Amino acid sequence: MKRSKVTVVGLGLIGGSLARALRRAGHDVRGYDRPRIWAQARTAGAITGRRESLEASVRDAEFVVLAAPPAANLVLLRRVAEAADKETVITDVGSVKGPICRAAARLHLREFVGGHPMAGTEGSGFQASSPGIFRGRAWILTPQGRNGRSVAKVSALVRSVGGRVALLDPSDHDRAVAFLSHLPQLLAWSLAGAVRDDKVARRYLSFAGPGFKDMTRLAQSPRGLWREILRENRYEVERALRAFTRVLRFRP
Amino acid sequence: MKRSKVTVVGLGLIGGSLARALRRAGHDVRGYDRPRIWAQARTAGAITGRRESLEASVRDAEFVVLAAPPAANLVLLRRVAEAADKETVITDVGSVKGPICRAAARLHLREFVGGHPMAGTEGSGFQASSPGIFRGRAWILTPQGRNGRSVAKVSALVRSVGGRVALLDPSDHDRAVAFLSHLPQLLAWSLAGAVRDDKVARRYLSFAGPGFKDMTRLAQSPRGLWREILRENRYEVERALRAFTRVLRFRP
Repeated sequence: MKRSKVTVVGLGLIGGSLARALRRAGHDVRGYDRPRIWAQARTAGAITGRRESLEASVRDAEFVVLAAPPAANLVLLRRVAEAADKETVITDVGSVKGPICRAAARLHLREFVGGHPMAGTEGSGFQASSPGIFRGRAWILTPQGRNGRSVAKVSALVRSVGGRVALLDPSDHDRAVAFLSHLPQLLAWSLAGAVRDDKVARRYLSFAGPGFKDMTRLAQSPRGLWREILRENRYEVERALRAFTRVLRFRP
Repeated sequence: MKRSKVTVVGLGLIGGSLARALRRAGHDVRGYDRPRIWAQARTAGAITGRRESLEASVRDAEFVVLAAPPAANLVLLRRVAEAADKETVITDVGSVKGPICRAAARLHLREFVGGHPMAGTEGSGFQASSPGIFRGRAWILTPQGRNGRSVAKVSALVRSVGGRVALLDPSDHDRAVAFLSHLPQLLAWSLAGAVRDDKVARRYLSFAGPGFKDMTRLAQSPRGLWREILRENRYEVERALRAFTRVLRFRP
């Protein structure tokens, strides 16, 4: 893929990792975030240039990637759409696709392509970022209407950092991730919480085998961000939870 | 520790791994299981000698380790106790300690020490065994009454294969493992089952990230064995399940 000008808005775990991966792939990467985080990313070489306003940061960009938490992405989408050139392709890396795709449709943003890399760790923030997390992993895109050219462009960008593109309907995406990602998050929290609440079990936490550790690792993920994600996808999360409870009741 | 004569009864994942680990530690290891499995273990060098009856296999042993499924261990305990010498120390590696410890008390087996290595994988059978699985892992012993000398002996045996001995009351053990091992098993099954039952989510299973894979790995564990374990520890499993459901309802 040719060298592209990409602006990553939000330089946390995913945005920071993406900026690093894009730089490594030879792209021209600018970033936007609060001054402290921006400076961290700049020092680490994840981004280049000077710190500017959001509007100035996205001007002239061929791609803008929204990588802030879900509610912030919805606000940023409007601001970026106003500041960016008409041809700028806007995408995001949020865990829920329905709301942002609907917002983009309301704003008549033809060049918006919803996205969701199925990658990450239980860590958070730029300090936990790593350029290799997308390699070999699925990266879902949720095209709408007639933005085929933008989808092709974002697909090329995704492949340049090692992602495997898959095209899904936003509502199928949200239903699938409710089962494959959001429900596991709830279960990990609840399992960790149940042990913490039991006066006997919590004394013997150090005896837990690898199975328990694997099942509660996600409980360390940032709560605030996850509360937002679960709230945004609440209908699908409820569906997944009902399906889970049904199987649990029947007891295998 | 000096070279001991140990008979391992049941040469599946745990028994087979233990036989291998004991051999590697220099002990004299005999085994008992169905002919096909016994032959597998003999060929792999996990055990020595000829295949004999259960009774002949435990005669002269300093240690007998019961490593069959829970219900079978209860039957084997009585047969081994009758066939073995008075000084033979009997221990087991089962996941639930109340029933077998009560059975040993009823049989007045002073030299019985309940045991549970907190090790294992989602695999099963001798072919999944590996001598290193106990290294650095907790190995719980549940002494009863005045069997201090036997506890010391089993502790030395456990340490010779790399286990970290911890002494617990059988009822504390059963409560702790209900939270740390049996509840996770139920959750893994139910999560995997919920995805399998959903017509959309199951199509996108290949997109699941490492978090989902970690949380459903245990679902591959052998069902028959796990049903037995969960049934044996049903009161404590119910307690853990209630605690889990309470946290899940409050939604973090």
